[in-house]
Amino acid sequence: MLNFEFTLPTKFLFGRGTESLAGQELKAVGGTRALIHYGGGSAVRSGLLDRVTKSLDEAGVEYVLLGGAVPNPRDSKVYEGIALVRKEKCDCILAVGGGSAIDSAKAIAHGSVYDGDFWDLWSGKAPVTKTLPLGCVLTLSATGSESSNSSVIMQEKTKLKRGLNTPLNRPLFAIMNPELTFTLPPYQVACGATDIMAHIMERYFTNEKEVAVTDHLCEALLKTVIQFAPIAYKDPTNYDAQAQLMWTGTLAHNNTCGVGREGDWASHQIEHELSAMYDVAHGAGLAVVFPAWMRYNLDHDVNRFAQFAVNVYGVEMNFDNPRETALRGIERHEAFLKSIGMPLTFKELGAKTEDIPAMAKNVKRGPDGKTGQFVKLDTKEIEEIFRIADR
Amino acid sequence: MLNFEFTLPTKFLFGRGTESLAGQELKAVGGTRALIHYGGGSAVRSGLLDRVTKSLDEAGVEYVLLGGAVPNPRDSKVYEGIALVRKEKCDCILAVGGGSAIDSAKAIAHGSVYDGDFWDLWSGKAPVTKTLPLGCVLTLSATGSESSNSSVIMQEKTKLKRGLNTPLNRPLFAIMNPELTFTLPPYQVACGATDIMAHIMERYFTNEKEVAVTDHLCEALLKTVIQFAPIAYKDPTNYDAQAQLMWTGTLAHNNTCGVGREGDWASHQIEHELSAMYDVAHGAGLAVVFPAWMRYNLDHDVNRFAQFAVNVYGVEMNFDNPRETALRGIERHEAFLKSIGMPLTFKELGAKTEDIPAMAKNVKRGPDGKTGQFVKLDTKEIEEIFRIADR
Repeated sequence: MLNFEFTLPTKFLFGRGTESLAGQELKAVGGTRALIHYGGGSAVRSGLLDRVTKSLDEAGVEYVLLGGAVPNPRDSKVYEGIALVRKEKCDCILAVGGGSAIDSAKAIAHGSVYDGDFWDLWSGKAPVTKTLPLGCVLTLSATGSESSNSSVIMQEKTKLKRGLNTPLNRPLFAIMNPELTFTLPPYQVACGATDIMAHIMERYFTNEKEVAVTDHLCEALLKTVIQFAPIAYKDPTNYDAQAQLMWTGTLAHNNTCGVGREGDWASHQIEHELSAMYDVAHGAGLAVVFPAWMRYNLDHDVNRFAQFAVNVYGVEMNFDNPRETALRGIERHEAFLKSIGMPLTFKELGAKTEDIPAMAKNVKRGPDGKTGQFVKLDTKEIEEIFRIADR
Repeated sequence: MLNFEFTLPTKFLFGRGTESLAGQELKAVGGTRALIHYGGGSAVRSGLLDRVTKSLDEAGVEYVLLGGAVPNPRDSKVYEGIALVRKEKCDCILAVGGGSAIDSAKAIAHGSVYDGDFWDLWSGKAPVTKTLPLGCVLTLSATGSESSNSSVIMQEKTKLKRGLNTPLNRPLFAIMNPELTFTLPPYQVACGATDIMAHIMERYFTNEKEVAVTDHLCEALLKTVIQFAPIAYKDPTNYDAQAQLMWTGTLAHNNTCGVGREGDWASHQIEHELSAMYDVAHGAGLAVVFPAWMRYNLDHDVNRFAQFAVNVYGVEMNFDNPRETALRGIERHEAFLKSIGMPLTFKELGAKTEDIPAMAKNVKRGPDGKTGQFVKLDTKEIEEIFRIADR
C-alpha cells in the first residue's frame, strides 16, 4: 500500500427533499449572491430550479441564472460564466445538474478569481490556488463530480478534452436526492452506471500490491452497480436502485476506494478522444474502450483480471487456467454492458476506423509520452486498443 | 435507505514516517502551543514521542506533555488535562496513542473551553458547542476514534462508562503509520480487530431496507479483518496486515459504511458494563457479548444473519433452511474470534454470574428504557444475553 493523504471536505446531504437545503448551505459557506449553473430544460420543466431558487430566496441568498450546461462541457460556457460572475459580482456558485454542469461550475469558480485565461489551469500552464465557494444539486449518477477532485472541459477550437485534478475541485456541499434522476432516459442511466464502473475499474487495475481493503471496497461498489443498474435502467423511477447508484457513484470517484494505490486512467484518456470527436456520451465511449483495454492488457497481470472475474462477476475460478477465468470476466463485463443497452463497438457507437490514428495521437500523455499506469501505452498501443474496439 | 447527512472533515496522512508531519499539521490548524496527550511508556521507549516533539519543534509549535492515558479512559485524567491546558494556555491538542488517548483528548479539548464540569457534556446535561483544534497520531487500530464522532469516558466514582457523539469529536487530522503498531502484543492486536468488526456489525444489523451499497461495504471491511487479523496476530510487525487493519479500523467507525441506515449498538452498551466492572479490554468484552447478542436475536431477522454468514464468512447458503445457515455464520464468527485468542465466555473473561443483574441494570438506555435498535432490549433481555455468554 502506498502512503497517502486523503481529505474529503464535501458535506453530503442525501435523500428525498434535500434540494430545499440549497439556500441554507450556500449561506453557511458564506455565499450572498450565487451564480446558479444548470443544464437544459429538464431542471426547469421538472420544477427543480423553482424549488432550488425558492430555497435561496428563503435563505436570503441572491442569484443569477446560467443555463445551457451540455454533455462534454465546453470552454465557451465557462467563459460565459466567468464574465457573468464578474459582471454580477457573484460570490458563490451552485451547480444544478450532472457532471457537465458541475465540471463547468468548477471551472467558472476557479476562473472567476484567476487573472488570466482559465484554460491555463486546465492546460497545466498555471496551478489553481484559489476559487469561489461551490455547492451542487446532483441530478445524474455518473461522474462523481459532486465530490471528486476532478473536472473535464473541452476546448472547442481544438476539440481537446482536458481533465484537471485539484483538491479545490471538491464542492463544499453536495445535495443528492435520488428522485431527481427519475426523469432520466434509460440510456442515460446506463451511461452513468458505465461511467461509475469505469471510475472504480481505473483504480482496481493497479500494479500496487497489498491493497486488499481498497480491492474489497472496489468489488463491493462494482457489485452494487451490477445489481442495481439493470433495475434503474428498466425503471428510472425506482428509488432504491437510483439511491444505490447515486451513492455508489460518489464513492466511486471521491477516492474512497482508491487511496494507497495508483490508478490507471488510460481508458478515460482514450475515451475522451471518442467523445470529443463524435460528441457521444462519455459512458457510452467507456463501454467501447474499457473492454478493449482489458483484452489488450490481460496478460500484464492475469491474476488481477481473474480476481475481477471471481470477486466482481462471481465467475468460478479455474485454478488450472486462471487466464481462462480472467477472459470469462471480460466477457461477463461486456455482456453486462450490453444488457443495459450500451454499445461495445466502434460501429455501435458511430465511430470510424479512419479516425483512429488522429485520435490515438491526441490522447493526453504523461511526461514520458505514454498514457496509463497499469500498462504505459504509446501511440501504437493506443491504436491497437481502438482497433480491438473497431470490430 | 434513510436520508442522511455525512461530513468527514478529518485529513488523513497514512503511511510510513507520517508522524514527522505532526508539527506542520498542528500549525496548519492554527495551533501555537499544544497539549500532547499520550499513553504509557511505549511511546517514550519506542522513540515515537521524540520524533513527534521534534516535528513540533521544527514547525515552531510549543508543547506541554501529559502522559498516562489508560484503557477505558477515566474522568480523572480529563480533569487533569483540562487544568493543564488552562494553566499552560494551550490552544490545540495532539493525542498520541490509541482510542483511549484520543477519546480522552477529545474530552480535554471540549472541556477546556466549557464553563462547567466537562462531565455535563458526556452525561447529556449540556451540548458541545465549541472545542480546541485536535489532531492525533494513531498507535493502535481499534476504536476508530481517529476520525469518528464518538468518545467514551468512564466516571471513576460511579464506574459509569458514557459515550458522546458529536461532529466536534472528529479530529482535524489523523496521522496513521502502521509501523507504530509493530510493538503491540498480539492480544491487543486481536482486541483491536474485534472492536473493528463490532463497529461494522453494529451497523450491519439494521432493520432498514434497501441498503445494499453499505451492506456491501460492511462485508468488504469485515472480510478484510478476517483476512488480515490472523496475520497481524501472528506477527504484529507485518506492515501489510497492520496497514489493512488500520485503514479498515478508520472506515469501520467514521460512518463510511453506516450512512443511510440505523445501527444497533446494544452490544457496545452491554460491553461497556463488562469493561467498567472488570477493567477488561473493550475488544475482549465485545468478543464475549456480540456472539451472545447474535444468538439471542437470530430469529428477529434470519435472512440478515444468513446474509452475514454467506457474504462475510462464505458459508454455503442452505436454501431449505436459512436459519441453519445463519447459525453457521455465528459459529464461524465465534471460531474466528477464538482463533485470534479472544475469550468467548464469562469464565474466559473473568466475569462473574452474580454481577449480571447489576450490570444489566446499569446498561445505558434510550428514553424508552431500552437498549439497541435492531431489537430493543429491556433489562430482562440484557440479562438473558449475559447468561448466554456465561456458559
